[in-house]
Amino acid sequence: MNILALETSAKSVSVCLCRDEFLVAQSYQNSGLTHSQTLMPLCRDLLAHCGMEASEVDLIACAAGPGSFTGLRIGLATAKGLAWALEKPCCGVSTLEAMAWQVAHRRGEILCAMDARRGQVYNARFSSDGARLTRLCPDRAISLEELFFELGEKTDQIVVGDGAELCYNDGIGRGARLELAPPHLRFQTAWGVARAALETARAGRCTDAAGLRAQYIRLSQAERERLARQGRPV
Amino acid sequence: MNILALETSAKSVSVCLCRDEFLVAQSYQNSGLTHSQTLMPLCRDLLAHCGMEASEVDLIACAAGPGSFTGLRIGLATAKGLAWALEKPCCGVSTLEAMAWQVAHRRGEILCAMDARRGQVYNARFSSDGARLTRLCPDRAISLEELFFELGEKTDQIVVGDGAELCYNDGIGRGARLELAPPHLRFQTAWGVARAALETARAGRCTDAAGLRAQYIRLSQAERERLARQGRPV
Repeated sequence: MNILALETSAKSVSVCLCRDEFLVAQSYQNSGLTHSQTLMPLCRDLLAHCGMEASEVDLIACAAGPGSFTGLRIGLATAKGLAWALEKPCCGVSTLEAMAWQVAHRRGEILCAMDARRGQVYNARFSSDGARLTRLCPDRAISLEELFFELGEKTDQIVVGDGAELCYNDGIGRGARLELAPPHLRFQTAWGVARAALETARAGRCTDAAGLRAQYIRLSQAERERLARQGRPV
Repeated sequence: MNILALETSAKSVSVCLCRDEFLVAQSYQNSGLTHSQTLMPLCRDLLAHCGMEASEVDLIACAAGPGSFTGLRIGLATAKGLAWALEKPCCGVSTLEAMAWQVAHRRGEILCAMDARRGQVYNARFSSDGARLTRLCPDRAISLEELFFELGEKTDQIVVGDGAELCYNDGIGRGARLELAPPHLRFQTAWGVARAALETARAGRCTDAAGLRAQYIRLSQAERERLARQGRPV
């Protein structure tokens, strides 16, 4: 199965083409340019460099959240457009599960963290037997204080994601036993998205363009401000 | 320091741009197309996607060998051309050291292996403390029999490179304690080349376009055949 995967949940952007687990091609960049400029040229050139037509792709995969609201919308809109135009199935995956795959070759517990601002991280926890991931909690927004209270005296954790350093520095100060994922595996990539999408496809849980939805976890700032103006609970 | 790194030593090809250890952008593909078709468009598009001029690169790095004779020549010729035209320093690194960096975040011994045909692998061994590599032997072509005789009852090895599977299957049959690097870290990448080049640059051992040389380890088939025709030892 040829999977075209997009990852736009944070500052870096990447696209890849996988044949099942096998990485055929990947383009990654963390140059500070906006995804609305970089994503489509990356997709186009990736397929062109491989001598491949978009019609040969079997599944369009995309990081569905949590993450940057604008970043996610750029990725999801692109995935929807491609899936609709090409009449292909598509698949939104948890950004946190996707990044856990980056270090799933390590046996042990994985702490996924993205900076959610306002004193929180987007977080999920997984354990890996070196080949398979087991989810230990749902995707959530949580304060570092609550997270490390929950972990307590738990086993060593490998920390991954664009919020890994934030989480690591805070956790070490609280006496947690943490290991920071190395720089080349720390940030989310399209490969992780494709890997998570492969599990979803094997479980028969793909969707179509219309069915692809963001999983923001939290309300956007605009929605929170609107509710606050209306005096309703945020 | 902005490092543009090229990796063409085997079937896959990749180029990346690093700012010291930080990966700014990388394009990788393992699609079966020849490097002479793919390498230059990958370089051009990588820089263009980052909004960067070639003149902003400080160092051109390249896998210098061992590896595919044709693949290495394509990479080295490209690196020489870029370094000469841009008047930038360049740096050839051991393909085997570059791939060791991919798994250098793991403490322990690393067995690097590329398929050298004729019953041999190109091999070097390293140990890592989780951050730094220590070389345990020079780059060499060695039979699997000799390699596993040398290893004897040695500690567990993580096996990396495009010859990792070959080496792993043979070694497991001989009772060696091996772990295969996971698919997304197994094959050499430009990031590994850039990481090795950073060490070379820090040690003040870069060169210029004219000084960049292939390290083939073995004679090419054409050279072996010429010596054999002349009745000289191969």
